[in-house]
Amino acid sequence: MKITVGISNKHAHLTQEQIEALFGKGYHLTFFRNIKQPDEFVSNEKIDVAGPKGILKDVRILGPAREKAQIEMTLTNARAIGVEAKIRVSAHVEGSSGVTLIGPAGQIELKEGVIAAVRHLHMTPDEARTLGLHEGQRVAVETSGERAVIFKNVIVRIDELFSLELHLDTDEANAAGLKNGDEVTLV
Amino acid sequence: MKITVGISNKHAHLTQEQIEALFGKGYHLTFFRNIKQPDEFVSNEKIDVAGPKGILKDVRILGPAREKAQIEMTLTNARAIGVEAKIRVSAHVEGSSGVTLIGPAGQIELKEGVIAAVRHLHMTPDEARTLGLHEGQRVAVETSGERAVIFKNVIVRIDELFSLELHLDTDEANAAGLKNGDEVTLV
Repeated sequence: MKITVGISNKHAHLTQEQIEALFGKGYHLTFFRNIKQPDEFVSNEKIDVAGPKGILKDVRILGPAREKAQIEMTLTNARAIGVEAKIRVSAHVEGSSGVTLIGPAGQIELKEGVIAAVRHLHMTPDEARTLGLHEGQRVAVETSGERAVIFKNVIVRIDELFSLELHLDTDEANAAGLKNGDEVTLV
Repeated sequence: MKITVGISNKHAHLTQEQIEALFGKGYHLTFFRNIKQPDEFVSNEKIDVAGPKGILKDVRILGPAREKAQIEMTLTNARAIGVEAKIRVSAHVEGSSGVTLIGPAGQIELKEGVIAAVRHLHMTPDEARTLGLHEGQRVAVETSGERAVIFKNVIVRIDELFSLELHLDTDEANAAGLKNGDEVTLV
């Protein structure tokens, strides 16, 4: 079973209120490009994300606006700015680290929201049935090449809107020598 | 078989001539601390490493001086400064990318030398005999925890001066959620 890899760079999900605090009253995210997951887009808007030891410049915001802020970064990024990134499933930010978000029209102190996404495998219900997998199941995925790796604890996420894709962050992709669009195998 | 993890951050190996070009005529590296491999030390000296897209600040130099320059960094680091880091065994820098090295007393254009070290497992000849392994053999190593991984293609390096230790770079360690001194298992 061949699966395409989608590599997540650091990015932010923000509420509409936070977008306005950072970019100005009444501001809305503007479309830059699609991503493979059809319910989200990459916006043109970028912010700086500051921790006690440094700043991550030009962090892309993904749209549309969400109910709660979530700043996704690698453990490499987190160490660079002196915060902890808990390894979490998307939207589970309780008790995670805070950071300062800096936009052109203002800044926000986030109390929590910094996570490194748990690696996960998106698929539709049909694909899950074909593969005999269920929501939240942990599977292993094998890569090939010089830096071949078997990633264990890959969480299956099922949704009608999902495209079949393995989501890794750049630390994981680099550790395995993977590029966007490379293929891996479900073990 | 439990093996301790040693995580390599970006660092430089330089020739004595290059050290003098960067730090001044007659300059020698000064000792900062030991590393587990007993024939090398971390020096107090740091340089900046510049590529077309950015600069890695404060890159530590490892001593003693070597026959040839080698700048070890992660693929994350390499992308940040706009160079390619070939995945290579230490000292195999032929055809690798160049960078600019910047020290307090001068700078050098390196024609080649940027590598990401192949993950490898150091051991003594006695340990190799006990484990039934030979120089250059590729083995697999398994980690545990939330980001559990099996690293394949780990190269066995044998030397009387080596301590039994798995050497990973920070991308690899972060992808597996490992810290210095964590234990992994030879598969």
